[in-house]
Amino acid sequence: MMASHERAQSVVAFGGGHGLSASLQALRLLVADLVIDDLTAVVTVADNGGSSGRLRGEFGVLPPGDLRMALAALCGEHQWGDTWARVLQHRFAGQGEMNGHVIGNLLIVGLWEQLGDPVSALDWVGRLLGTTGRVLPMALTPLDITAQVRGLEVTDPAALATVRGQVEVATTSGEIVSIALDPPDPAPCPEALAAVDEADWVVLGPGSWFTSVMPHLMVPQLRDALVQTDARLVVVLNLVDEAGETSGFGPADHLAALVEHAPDLRIHSVLADSDSVGEGAADLEAAVASYGAVLHLADVALHDGSPHHDPARLAAAYTRIMTGA
Amino acid sequence: MMASHERAQSVVAFGGGHGLSASLQALRLLVADLVIDDLTAVVTVADNGGSSGRLRGEFGVLPPGDLRMALAALCGEHQWGDTWARVLQHRFAGQGEMNGHVIGNLLIVGLWEQLGDPVSALDWVGRLLGTTGRVLPMALTPLDITAQVRGLEVTDPAALATVRGQVEVATTSGEIVSIALDPPDPAPCPEALAAVDEADWVVLGPGSWFTSVMPHLMVPQLRDALVQTDARLVVVLNLVDEAGETSGFGPADHLAALVEHAPDLRIHSVLADSDSVGEGAADLEAAVASYGAVLHLADVALHDGSPHHDPARLAAAYTRIMTGA
Repeated sequence: MMASHERAQSVVAFGGGHGLSASLQALRLLVADLVIDDLTAVVTVADNGGSSGRLRGEFGVLPPGDLRMALAALCGEHQWGDTWARVLQHRFAGQGEMNGHVIGNLLIVGLWEQLGDPVSALDWVGRLLGTTGRVLPMALTPLDITAQVRGLEVTDPAALATVRGQVEVATTSGEIVSIALDPPDPAPCPEALAAVDEADWVVLGPGSWFTSVMPHLMVPQLRDALVQTDARLVVVLNLVDEAGETSGFGPADHLAALVEHAPDLRIHSVLADSDSVGEGAADLEAAVASYGAVLHLADVALHDGSPHHDPARLAAAYTRIMTGA
Repeated sequence: MMASHERAQSVVAFGGGHGLSASLQALRLLVADLVIDDLTAVVTVADNGGSSGRLRGEFGVLPPGDLRMALAALCGEHQWGDTWARVLQHRFAGQGEMNGHVIGNLLIVGLWEQLGDPVSALDWVGRLLGTTGRVLPMALTPLDITAQVRGLEVTDPAALATVRGQVEVATTSGEIVSIALDPPDPAPCPEALAAVDEADWVVLGPGSWFTSVMPHLMVPQLRDALVQTDARLVVVLNLVDEAGETSGFGPADHLAALVEHAPDLRIHSVLADSDSVGEGAADLEAAVASYGAVLHLADVALHDGSPHHDPARLAAAYTRIMTGA
């Protein structure tokens, strides 16, 4: 299928974890279908748990896990890349010191140590996997998410407490009022800024809202680039709220939290799952319109009982939005 | 340079560690020079120390270190393979749980777990590095070296004690009288048996004599294959004795130990370094002749103060032996 546009279209997708992975698998299909020509993923680097957290603690490097997952999502269906992607996603079991570590995380850290340049190292993994597109970190130094959270203090339920760390924020039992980064002004990745500047479309979400999606807006130079770019911004809402960080959040609440943290962001389109929105469609449409954006409702869920996006359905929705079809 | 032979020549090199690495770097040059066409490395799998020992202990797999080193030695001088070889040889520093682990060891173990077949996994690493030739394990299950050692008991210096483990045998303060494997009859690698059967030349050594070179002769089916093959066997002697396992051993002592452990082995050529042999050349020549073999003396040392072979000089010596030049 040839797209109904006249020039090369480039897309930058922001997020982290499984949400970004689904979005990238979808966007990879758009490259295959010639709807878009150029694809860049920008990935949060605030993880402090699991294999990534251990490696970050041991070597002071960026947490590699979400970067690895994004690279694997961009790997095409050829035996070479597919085999290496499986190996890089392999997680050690057993009872020993390697338990829980993921091969690709170790390989990325080794490349960083050998090559000395995080971006070049990720490009080498991309070449190994034969990825469609490029994976970049949102900042060049590891950072932490902090959140102002209400409802954690028994004696004063209205009081705000500070919760620190991606894992801790993602699993808080309180209500997140705002997030910030520590350090507050991390060095952005120059290649990510350039990609945003040159992009035709930027995709933000889906994914863990406060810990994978919104952190991108808290890197000052990255937010400036997102505000200033001529690219049209598509916000992809989650299918459900997440226990912990977004308990009780409806689609409009997700959007409101995002806009509160970046009021001058111009949103072009909001993509939401029709079933998830259900009878709230009119209200959501009004909220979206109040931000100057257009709501796209589509069936983008996996239909396997999980709250995950289906890459193929997401690809169809992206295609409609980006081609105006 | 076109070799003075009329048909394809295939070579199988046996050993482990740095000695095998030097031999393989030399043999890779013979492939580049069209002296030989086909190259297979067969590697000891008895290591119980360092990163390999830890992984073997944690996952019950073959120790990957010597296999990784052999693969890196067969990697050509192209940017792709060279970069991946550097990354696979990268050893983590730091003070944490990863300290001392080598990326390539972890990658090989991950491939074994993902693919379920040790040989196929090594072939995948070979393809990644663009190696010249193939690397195979000498057995399909990890094993231990045991040694009968004299001189460890203060009260009876003539008594024999059993020392167990590659590291322990390599560093014993006593005199090694004989070695054995535990289990004594490990499953050999069928591809290694086939390679020996089809080889024109087999190269044994250099390397740690009792712990890297001679263990190959203690795998019954592998020894049978080496005895029965029509391939001509070249034994490459070490430049010096090694503190621990071969303290005080001269060139002829190395050869005698090997023949004692495999009396029916037919040796075609013995390659020794001229400077290392020095005034003992006539005696060594007589010993070599008594085994029905021919002594080749050549300058094969690195001349950097280390007791290591120089791959380029070793390549020149191999070429003279294998072309009869």
